[in-house]
Amino acid sequence: MQQIIDFILELDKLKGVTRKTRPLGLDRQENSAEHSWQIALLAMSLAPYAPAPVDINRVVAMLLVHDIGEIDTGDTLVYIEHGWEERKAAELIAVKRIFGLLPTEQATPLLALWQEFETGETAEARFASAADRAMPALLNLANGGQSWRENGISHARVVQRIGPPIAAGCPALWTYMAARLDAAREQGWFGA
Amino acid sequence: MQQIIDFILELDKLKGVTRKTRPLGLDRQENSAEHSWQIALLAMSLAPYAPAPVDINRVVAMLLVHDIGEIDTGDTLVYIEHGWEERKAAELIAVKRIFGLLPTEQATPLLALWQEFETGETAEARFASAADRAMPALLNLANGGQSWRENGISHARVVQRIGPPIAAGCPALWTYMAARLDAAREQGWFGA
Repeated sequence: MQQIIDFILELDKLKGVTRKTRPLGLDRQENSAEHSWQIALLAMSLAPYAPAPVDINRVVAMLLVHDIGEIDTGDTLVYIEHGWEERKAAELIAVKRIFGLLPTEQATPLLALWQEFETGETAEARFASAADRAMPALLNLANGGQSWRENGISHARVVQRIGPPIAAGCPALWTYMAARLDAAREQGWFGA
Repeated sequence: MQQIIDFILELDKLKGVTRKTRPLGLDRQENSAEHSWQIALLAMSLAPYAPAPVDINRVVAMLLVHDIGEIDTGDTLVYIEHGWEERKAAELIAVKRIFGLLPTEQATPLLALWQEFETGETAEARFASAADRAMPALLNLANGGQSWRENGISHARVVQRIGPPIAAGCPALWTYMAARLDAAREQGWFGA
């Protein structure tokens, strides 16, 4: 039992890992814990739009654990160009440390979920990734492109970076978002 | 699709609903969105200690939606003495409004999860409630009783309020916590 408590208290640190996006109407940056909650609910809500049958429970579990490595590495804006592989290697070391606080029987399935998400080869992982990639853009579409403008991210860069994973994991969502992103470009909501 | 997006953006408001507890090491109050994420992981980790077989996926889904009514009602400290029924009636109105943003086919199961948690009659609901009640006390046990001291909550009140639901939903967790709470009393970590 103490191992579980140590693990859960370690997870508290994810509440202090900040992202570039701000919650709507709040004057602070979003953190990765509340983001993980929101994308789990996005995936649950989007389930009827999955292009292939998915085990939505595994999708939800994947989304709840997928950012835990950021406790050691911090969040990185999805639009950075370089260093992505090094970052993922560092996150793997981090999640092995953090899940390793648990008894092995419980650490193993959580690590498997994390790796399934990162590998992206199952329908569940692709659907989960679509929800993860879509959420900050949906927030930006609702707040005038706050993090795109603050970080100098162009429309082309957004489409290039989030289009393929969203289209692969949830085509109907990408159809919706591509049109919204085009309209946002007309509004001047992008940087660069 | 627009209904789903409207729902998810409405959920963003839960990131701004603050609780009495502070995340460890952070100088701000916890919000109900990040709390929901953490207790979902607590339940996943605690699953081997469930006293009866539980569908852990339903437990997780319940925990992800159980606080959504607070978007309209705000969080209330679990130790308040009065007004609990009025509050729950207000939360029901709130979740009907918020889940009602979704198409009916998706709103109905989410409302059923919320009501299952509130009714507390299934093993899943009891296990979920144990995780929900335990988490703020686990944080208090890790930070010297911050919210107990700030809000004048006594050891007896904590035991009376969280003991029965935790003992009913996850007896092994309550055995662990009762001993920790006794030790915390020796340390003077309670108010009143």
